[in-house]
Amino acid sequence: MSTSEVTVIGLGTLGAALAAALIRTGHRVTVWNRTPAKADALVAQGAARADTVAEAVAASPLLIVCVFDTAAVRELIGPYGSALSGKAVVNLTTGSPEEARSLAEWAAARGISYLDGAVMAVPEAVGTPDAFVLYSGSREVFDAHRRSLDSLGASHFLGTDAGVAEFHDLGLLSAGYATMTGFLHAAALVGTAGVTARDFLPLATSWLTGVVAFLADLAREVDSGDYAGGASSVAINQVAVGNIVRASRAAGIAPDVLLPLKELLDTGAADGNGSDSFASLVELLRR
Amino acid sequence: MSTSEVTVIGLGTLGAALAAALIRTGHRVTVWNRTPAKADALVAQGAARADTVAEAVAASPLLIVCVFDTAAVRELIGPYGSALSGKAVVNLTTGSPEEARSLAEWAAARGISYLDGAVMAVPEAVGTPDAFVLYSGSREVFDAHRRSLDSLGASHFLGTDAGVAEFHDLGLLSAGYATMTGFLHAAALVGTAGVTARDFLPLATSWLTGVVAFLADLAREVDSGDYAGGASSVAINQVAVGNIVRASRAAGIAPDVLLPLKELLDTGAADGNGSDSFASLVELLRR
Ligand SMILES: NC(=O)c1ccc[n+]([C@@H]2O[C@H](COP(=O)([O-])OP(=O)(O)OC[C@H]3O[C@@H](n4cnc5c(N)ncnc54)[C@H](OP(=O)(O)O)[C@@H]3O)[C@@H](O)[C@H]2O)c1
Ligand SMILES: NC(=O)c1ccc[n+]([C@@H]2O[C@H](COP(=O)([O-])OP(=O)(O)OC[C@H]3O[C@@H](n4cnc5c(N)ncnc54)[C@H](OP(=O)(O)O)[C@@H]3O)[C@@H](O)[C@H]2O)c1
Repeated sequence: MSTSEVTVIGLGTLGAALAAALIRTGHRVTVWNRTPAKADALVAQGAARADTVAEAVAASPLLIVCVFDTAAVRELIGPYGSALSGKAVVNLTTGSPEEARSLAEWAAARGISYLDGAVMAVPEAVGTPDAFVLYSGSREVFDAHRRSLDSLGASHFLGTDAGVAEFHDLGLLSAGYATMTGFLHAAALVGTAGVTARDFLPLATSWLTGVVAFLADLAREVDSGDYAGGASSVAINQVAVGNIVRASRAAGIAPDVLLPLKELLDTGAADGNGSDSFASLVELLRR
Repeated sequence: MSTSEVTVIGLGTLGAALAAALIRTGHRVTVWNRTPAKADALVAQGAARADTVAEAVAASPLLIVCVFDTAAVRELIGPYGSALSGKAVVNLTTGSPEEARSLAEWAAARGISYLDGAVMAVPEAVGTPDAFVLYSGSREVFDAHRRSLDSLGASHFLGTDAGVAEFHDLGLLSAGYATMTGFLHAAALVGTAGVTARDFLPLATSWLTGVVAFLADLAREVDSGDYAGGASSVAINQVAVGNIVRASRAAGIAPDVLLPLKELLDTGAADGNGSDSFASLVELLRR
């Protein structure tokens, strides 16, 4: 007895934004949250309230789960294995790749179609062109519910290994953190010469836009394992990074965020690979 | 007896590209290099060859120097203090901010107008819209020779402190290295799930483009020192970075490039600043 199209379980900051986006795009939505008051605003927008998880599970063929962590996901849907049989579960809770894979196995053993997802957006951006959501696991769920998923943000299906979306999530976060950390270090460094971050920003933005475009070259080298034709060698970058570390220290700025890169360059050079390109450092990360 | 407009001293990979760009844009150029053969191609393009540094210095009102390091700069122009008096020296050799400042002092004491510069481009890009050059020191030299400087790349004057251009250079390089290193780590991580760097690239590019746009927010916080209204807290990012570190280890990828950030987040939280925004970490770099 499906009375709605989508059920959203978990109405925290992100879950509530997902439910609201589905309502805005004309879906019949059922909602449930442990603390019931968080459903009120969505009910006012037209959602149906489920009073129990059992009711929430029964209400729709598609279940979107977005709670604190994987332990909470297990606690919530674990008891409903047979009620969920034949239904689709889309889990947008952040977890590790291993957690996603083990949920997928749990689901498969019970005839549940499982799609794991990672929302690459702040809650306010959900449903806007700035949001994108990564999915992996059941291609069937992705295809059958594409229209609903698209109302959350641009949808990307990344593969049938349920862990792949979380791997991408972690990878993107990692690269993003690196960029932000590098900017803070750079801002601190130029700051010692009396330059404000605001004044540094335009050059940094234009420079980093070029660097982001250059990642295509790095990607090609990483995939081919051929580090002979890169734009700059381990040896040259070793000197440059050494200069930045030294100048940071001289200016009273902690060089620590650069030290692992310095270590990689030193190792690459000591291994006799000083004339290989910068991208060759990826091999040292895989050790 | 100035017989040409610009003299270029140092015709290595970068210096030769600078001289060629000046010739292409119609300048009368004199060139000198320690190993004379490197001048041959430029002479064929129309440059005048100086046989000695003294001749090179005498030839033009504007001297561009681009050699291996600051020690080489001192060695070359050091003996020509009085011959250079009244002339403009633009030093495009990479050096530390302190080296630039001390060259500026040396020049000032001899009536030489000194402009320090940092070329933000590979030699092949010199003279194309992809190149930009940062300058600091003598505003008069920058203004008087702007047309010549613009033929090398987009020119940015950053201040009268001669060290400021090198600070920017180091800052930009540092931020760029961080971004490239982060991408290599991310590519290694998703690679363990069978994802090629090529397949990861479009998402990474779009994500990092968003991150670069977000740096404007970080810059505002860095300048104001107000970390109360940021997009995400030290505590939340501490959890996320911890997850990436753990998942990297589980996947057999070295998490080292993230560890200094983890350390900063841990310190920020331990200092009682867990609810401050990510940008607050800049304070810890200044310690
Ligand atoms: N916020 C973001 O920017 C963002 C972006 C991408 C991904 N995410 C991920 O999305 C997920 C949710 O984030 P959020 O920001 O919405 O978190 P949140 O605002 O803290 O909400 C957490 C939700 O989980 C529920 N919950 C926690 N433990 C539970 C349990 N044992 N049983 C039932 N429900 C439980 C909470 O219910 P109560 O209301 O009863 O406490 C609440 O609905 C997290 O995995 C997060 O990492 C968040
Ligand atoms: N290449 C780049 O992508 C790039 C980009 C930005 C900045 N830079 C900076 O630009 C500068 C030059 O780089 P490059 O790539 O052109 O280097 P390069 O190809 O190695 O050329 C070095 C130049 O310095 C000369 N030189 C070295 N020691 C000397 C000495 N004691 N006396 C006289 N001449 C000396 C060399 O003369 P000989 O020919 O006689 O050896 C040669 O002309 C460096 O500071 C570098 O960091 C380079």
